[in-house]
Amino acid sequence: MDLLPLLKPRTVAVVGASDDPSKLGFHVMKSLKTWSYKGKIYPINPNRTFVMDTPTFRDLAQVDDLIDLAIIVVPNKRVEWVIGQCLEKNVKSIVLITAGFKESEGKEGALLQERLKDLVGDRIPVVGPNTFGLVSYHHGLNASFTPEFSLVPPGGAAIISQSGGISHLMAFLAMEQGLGLSYVVGLGNRLNVDFEHMLYHLAEDGPTKVAGLYVEGIEEPKRLLKAIKDVSDRIPVVVMKAGKGELADKASLSHTGSLAGSQKNYRFGILQSGGFVVEDVQSFLDLLKAYEILAPPKGNRVAILSGQAGPGIVALDACEDYGLSVKPFGKKTLSEIEEIIPPMAFRSNPVDLGPLWYDQSALVEIVKKVLKDPDIDAILFLMMFASANVNSIPALLEGLLDKRPEKPIFACIVAPKDIWQKEIKEGEAKGIFCNFSTPERAAKACAGMLSLEKRRYRI
Amino acid sequence: MDLLPLLKPRTVAVVGASDDPSKLGFHVMKSLKTWSYKGKIYPINPNRTFVMDTPTFRDLAQVDDLIDLAIIVVPNKRVEWVIGQCLEKNVKSIVLITAGFKESEGKEGALLQERLKDLVGDRIPVVGPNTFGLVSYHHGLNASFTPEFSLVPPGGAAIISQSGGISHLMAFLAMEQGLGLSYVVGLGNRLNVDFEHMLYHLAEDGPTKVAGLYVEGIEEPKRLLKAIKDVSDRIPVVVMKAGKGELADKASLSHTGSLAGSQKNYRFGILQSGGFVVEDVQSFLDLLKAYEILAPPKGNRVAILSGQAGPGIVALDACEDYGLSVKPFGKKTLSEIEEIIPPMAFRSNPVDLGPLWYDQSALVEIVKKVLKDPDIDAILFLMMFASANVNSIPALLEGLLDKRPEKPIFACIVAPKDIWQKEIKEGEAKGIFCNFSTPERAAKACAGMLSLEKRRYRI
Repeated sequence: MDLLPLLKPRTVAVVGASDDPSKLGFHVMKSLKTWSYKGKIYPINPNRTFVMDTPTFRDLAQVDDLIDLAIIVVPNKRVEWVIGQCLEKNVKSIVLITAGFKESEGKEGALLQERLKDLVGDRIPVVGPNTFGLVSYHHGLNASFTPEFSLVPPGGAAIISQSGGISHLMAFLAMEQGLGLSYVVGLGNRLNVDFEHMLYHLAEDGPTKVAGLYVEGIEEPKRLLKAIKDVSDRIPVVVMKAGKGELADKASLSHTGSLAGSQKNYRFGILQSGGFVVEDVQSFLDLLKAYEILAPPKGNRVAILSGQAGPGIVALDACEDYGLSVKPFGKKTLSEIEEIIPPMAFRSNPVDLGPLWYDQSALVEIVKKVLKDPDIDAILFLMMFASANVNSIPALLEGLLDKRPEKPIFACIVAPKDIWQKEIKEGEAKGIFCNFSTPERAAKACAGMLSLEKRRYRI
Repeated sequence: MDLLPLLKPRTVAVVGASDDPSKLGFHVMKSLKTWSYKGKIYPINPNRTFVMDTPTFRDLAQVDDLIDLAIIVVPNKRVEWVIGQCLEKNVKSIVLITAGFKESEGKEGALLQERLKDLVGDRIPVVGPNTFGLVSYHHGLNASFTPEFSLVPPGGAAIISQSGGISHLMAFLAMEQGLGLSYVVGLGNRLNVDFEHMLYHLAEDGPTKVAGLYVEGIEEPKRLLKAIKDVSDRIPVVVMKAGKGELADKASLSHTGSLAGSQKNYRFGILQSGGFVVEDVQSFLDLLKAYEILAPPKGNRVAILSGQAGPGIVALDACEDYGLSVKPFGKKTLSEIEEIIPPMAFRSNPVDLGPLWYDQSALVEIVKKVLKDPDIDAILFLMMFASANVNSIPALLEGLLDKRPEKPIFACIVAPKDIWQKEIKEGEAKGIFCNFSTPERAAKACAGMLSLEKRRYRI
């Protein structure tokens, strides 16, 4: 199936478009109209002549244009008829938002979904039913019932999710934490578009640097595992598997209409296939962000450069917890550092940059020296704002500017809001460092990248 | 020793006050002058007549007033003389910011610190040396070299820390995450004010509801353990112990001039004494926030109420991970819920509130019913913004307003910035719920409170 008309449609029809805010058809129209989608929009509503200043059509057949994507948001009893119309009209893809299918109690919804499946087969991709929709960031397309997805900055991480709620959670946290997205796709009940279809597409997709999957349960895990195996040399795959416990497993069955399956088997299979499994939402987002911004470390030898001693010690603890190696520097680097920093602070990994608060060029010099050390694979750079060190981060940016370091810098730069925020954003945009709000999260993201790289290339 | 003149001084002298931004004496003066401190400020500087529009004095002896607190920020060679002056002048307490004592390489600093210790004994409390200072939020006193500490809202959590960097990290994250502080105290090299002195004071201190200690290493852990034991029925004590690994242990020695000691022994001792040990910065802050806002749960029986199914399943996983019990509701609550929610979503813990996006009064009704269930000790309430549910959180606030629930509500309410932020702040200010940015963090804070309560009351 060709997903291009789904993810980069030239024309979109909204079947069930509405200007009544208590209908999802209103929110879908708002999502399409209030962002930067450049294609044609055709609202379908037999009872209105305009919806949000756009002329409506009685039904799809009335539209005198090719339709790449139909977003369906009508009551579920009418869905079958609308999809029939889509096929007749040769619509290229569908986002089926309507709920009340396999996920609901009783057999009726499941039977209805079966009939849809028989009707469509694999002729055209159908995302859903029971989804919020999807967002294609680099195409300016918000095909969802949540206009606010458009607020997240476009970027390199794709989130493919079996849960709409988790998609919303992750997208809004991404916004807050400076993670840019390429796609958010709610797979819903997966009529015929599943994780594997998305993965194959993402692997060929320019802007996507890393794929994050939120999986509750799937009928044929082997297809997912094969897809991860097939794409993992081109694109790193991060998986969060929910329904770990027995209770959650049961709950997830009624949510997505499929067995969550044994967590251990999933985990093992995903790792074997070259993917990586994270345990919680925050680790998921952190690993996506690391891949969006940084080149992966080539080994586990980390240098800790810290503007204050305490955070350096916390980072050191975290490195040991996560299997990263923090060894004293070799002779060359050590003597270079000892030339710069007086003997009042520790200087051999971790390095306490405290004495350099007023000497920013020396601080930058140390980062550069350590970046050149062949025995170091990654840097944890920590700096807590303290008024007297206000110039350190601007100096770091200026010092490293336009020379994106070959080695990744995992940063924990923390300041009151309005201070250093511009510099953090700029540093991340230029790939100089990736920032996390605690030393532990920075270390964990570094370790996560390393583990995933090992899985991807079986090293 | 009486800590009142230290934490609530009526008069403050700054020995080493400066208007040169490259000196810490400048930043200390700025901290004092640019917030809401109501007492008298006496800058001591023999080379200036004014510092920041305040008339200076040649030395302490010239000040014709009683001095409650002297903040010392002169070169370390001059500290001994200044402290001699303080004692002569009958100064009531000291914050000694100057570094270069026990923490530095070589013996000289350690010897100097020993001499200071002999000089002062336990006559007056001395915080430091080698500290950023302290902040007393309900007294409007910022006695530190970082004016930006004043930006954190006053509240009920005290942070007592052996590391200045960690204090800055935690305070700025607290600001971002809506945790209010009563004190931030950097103990530095602990000349004669140590964790135990602070704990005894905090236990009697009105506004402090919870004490958080960041410990690297101490010479006499028994004194700390005894203090925790003595105060833990009045005030919960949360400890983060750094220097867990061997490497960090060594680094911490040179940082604070004391052995970090065996992590296992510490952990065991703290738990035995009625305190609780957290593993990372974020968990530390989350537990402080939970205690600042909520009454602790009386048992581990949790109800999960979620605006979307997926986050409910993630929360369920987290509850199982952290030892919380999520059991189906009893007959009464279940039938009450089934009357309200149609059979398209799961209704017996977790409850999927999805069908109630447009019926806010029903949503509030469910929260109220579950709060009344005698078999439920705490609620995890999850709601991801999705445009169509925009009214849910305002309705929740209105529905529960002025009736602070007897049971704690751990919330994960996530929205794009500028949406629901006012309501989240209000809900937290009124103690209705405590908000966390992921379901896992909400569950972990609930479990942390439960564990700490068990330790405090040996149940």
